Amino acid sequence: MTNVKPTLNEAQQIEVKRQMAIYTQGVQEIIPTVELENKIAKSILENKPLKIKLGLDPSAPDVHLGHTVVLNKMRQFQENGHIIQLIIGDFTGKIGDPTGKSVARKQLTDEEVKHNAKTYFEQFAKIIDMEKVELHYNSKWLSKLNFEDVIQLAGKITVARLLERDDFEDRISHGKPISLHEFFYPLMQGYDSVMLECDIELGGTDQHFNILMGRHFQEKFGKEKQVALLMPLLEGLDGVEKMSKSKHNYIGIDEQPEEMYGKAMSIPDELMVKYFELITDFTPDQIQQLKEQLETGTLHPRDAKMLLGKTIVRMYHGAEEAEKAQQHFISVFQKGAMPEDIPVVKWEGASEIGIIEFLVGLQLFQSKSEARRMIENRGVKLNGTTVEDPKGKCTLTEGLIVQVGKRKFIKITL
Amino acid sequence: MTNVKPTLNEAQQIEVKRQMAIYTQGVQEIIPTVELENKIAKSILENKPLKIKLGLDPSAPDVHLGHTVVLNKMRQFQENGHIIQLIIGDFTGKIGDPTGKSVARKQLTDEEVKHNAKTYFEQFAKIIDMEKVELHYNSKWLSKLNFEDVIQLAGKITVARLLERDDFEDRISHGKPISLHEFFYPLMQGYDSVMLECDIELGGTDQHFNILMGRHFQEKFGKEKQVALLMPLLEGLDGVEKMSKSKHNYIGIDEQPEEMYGKAMSIPDELMVKYFELITDFTPDQIQQLKEQLETGTLHPRDAKMLLGKTIVRMYHGAEEAEKAQQHFISVFQKGAMPEDIPVVKWEGASEIGIIEFLVGLQLFQSKSEARRMIENRGVKLNGTTVEDPKGKCTLTEGLIVQVGKRKFIKITL
Repeated sequence: MTNVKPTLNEAQQIEVKRQMAIYTQGVQEIIPTVELENKIAKSILENKPLKIKLGLDPSAPDVHLGHTVVLNKMRQFQENGHIIQLIIGDFTGKIGDPTGKSVARKQLTDEEVKHNAKTYFEQFAKIIDMEKVELHYNSKWLSKLNFEDVIQLAGKITVARLLERDDFEDRISHGKPISLHEFFYPLMQGYDSVMLECDIELGGTDQHFNILMGRHFQEKFGKEKQVALLMPLLEGLDGVEKMSKSKHNYIGIDEQPEEMYGKAMSIPDELMVKYFELITDFTPDQIQQLKEQLETGTLHPRDAKMLLGKTIVRMYHGAEEAEKAQQHFISVFQKGAMPEDIPVVKWEGASEIGIIEFLVGLQLFQSKSEARRMIENRGVKLNGTTVEDPKGKCTLTEGLIVQVGKRKFIKITL
Repeated sequence: MTNVKPTLNEAQQIEVKRQMAIYTQGVQEIIPTVELENKIAKSILENKPLKIKLGLDPSAPDVHLGHTVVLNKMRQFQENGHIIQLIIGDFTGKIGDPTGKSVARKQLTDEEVKHNAKTYFEQFAKIIDMEKVELHYNSKWLSKLNFEDVIQLAGKITVARLLERDDFEDRISHGKPISLHEFFYPLMQGYDSVMLECDIELGGTDQHFNILMGRHFQEKFGKEKQVALLMPLLEGLDGVEKMSKSKHNYIGIDEQPEEMYGKAMSIPDELMVKYFELITDFTPDQIQQLKEQLETGTLHPRDAKMLLGKTIVRMYHGAEEAEKAQQHFISVFQKGAMPEDIPVVKWEGASEIGIIEFLVGLQLFQSKSEARRMIENRGVKLNGTTVEDPKGKCTLTEGLIVQVGKRKFIKITL
């Protein structure tokens, strides 16, 4: 049905094109584009919103800018009247890892799931309108399946198809074990799309296989197939690895303005445009203009990056805080306060650590009491922000700048 | 626990040896022998019978001598006071094949399962004491599992381990599909052993993988592991293929005495001793004696085979019928009535066919009416048995001898 292009009048055709231009901006892959176009056309003709699915892992509620790549895309659909379906994958969260080996899949209680979901929503509210979101917990249908249902579901897919998933293929070829239960995670994700009759599923390119499971099972269950809309993965502050909490190369959307701004300034120049495209609210036209200015040299990369930092702070803290963060940055890092070449120190210890232990570990102080005194005298700054609590902990990130007194600077690499 | 040999007195040690001699007779493989010995020792010390498991497919209730290889072994355990656990695999029978592709796995109703089970039991009663058997339907526990239970179960085995099963390995290497649900059949068989705490599971060598699943899952669930006792597969009348209904090379245990005897006489000489070992009630000593007599030439192979035929008929119809069947065979096939060289005709038609159609198809008669007349005159015999009903059907088996009148003989090959 989605392969037959409905008949549209001219105004409707323009509207399809307008929406397509928005949704395809910055996207890595659409499977397939023609179905997306037809779904949009149909939704215009029938005046019926599309259902846009996003699955959430209930175990990792800290939202950083890497996540916002997808969230910004969801917002665009929402702004055009489509419905966001957020699915909390609480079913697997409550089971945990049956082999007990995976730390990432630790078992969660009902309370933990609810608490994590709430944490997500509070953060998501900064990007999408949570009032208009459809919220689902997949345990609602998955916990009702019995063994016979599971066999019927498993009968709709082959082992060879599952082994095509990159990480499975990789493990098989390296002789590393795959527990049979792991085959069920993509099945569940696919079955969620069957139950919610999703039109589009969004995710990073690392979700390629799992999102196609939705198409597969919807077809097997005689439903209209969803379109896979895959977003690029955002590299973190190091410019190499995917942004993630475990790599300490992230900007959390709950971080303080000055920290956020400082971190944004530390990304490599060549990532700037990608950041504008994927995590800001800049329109395609604005981004095109920016690109041209950078290419012709009418915009200095440093100024573009300051615009990026200011934009990110504005999106999460408002225009006023954004201006303040920029002023702070200029006063600390630009007005000659910071030397051109800061010595880089590789940190091999824990990445969550007490501030005093950290400072002594860096050999910036001979003793803990010396370090404490300097903090109490407001003489220690991390990324330009004064450390207030000598008993506090700090989370080390790539490129963190430690300042002691007026002149001593160190840049941390992990 | 089963690896520690209990302390036995001399009489008990003799008893262990006596039972081991019986159970190991004719067996292809025991995994592992030392555990079997320890289980027997423990059962003697604690005066506690062992649980001997046999799983049954509820879709194929026709019992032939191929099945009795395992049943005879069960009987030996039963005669020594151990408990037979018959498990009807009704759970999968009721589901059928979720892909709808497999004819062998057609969906069965409750009534069909019960009816098939009853058919099994009536036939088994000729070999084992059904009064003393523990009877189980595995839907009792399998239908209670929910998705979470299934994931926990699946978490106890790796994909690589399942792909080791010969037929899976074969299909993967030939690019033939394996539906994911097929991975669950060995899991279920293993889980049955967990639920029933089986000590020993019996089966043909083709059950090697599935029976080891029982050991695997019992260990994963913290139970004592069962011993796998694998019996050789019995070749059928053709001496080549495994005896099976679909190959038309079988002797059913419900067949009439004369037919049974005649079929037994058609097996190749080199299979005789194996038949004695695997499907008769001859003791190890008796079989040893028979072997020696055949080797030294004091027993003619023909006479040994007649003893085999008579023994098989005796086991299923009693001594009197056995004697009669032998006399019948002698009168028809030996007293000069049957020529030395019977022409062999390859039959390419259906194997279930009306007798008249069959005779005309063989070109033994020019017309159907001619064939009918000969049958009505009692002039047609199949394997020495007079055909009574011209409207009847016959099931063609390898080596079937068709006799028309006194002198015309044809041997069928399929």
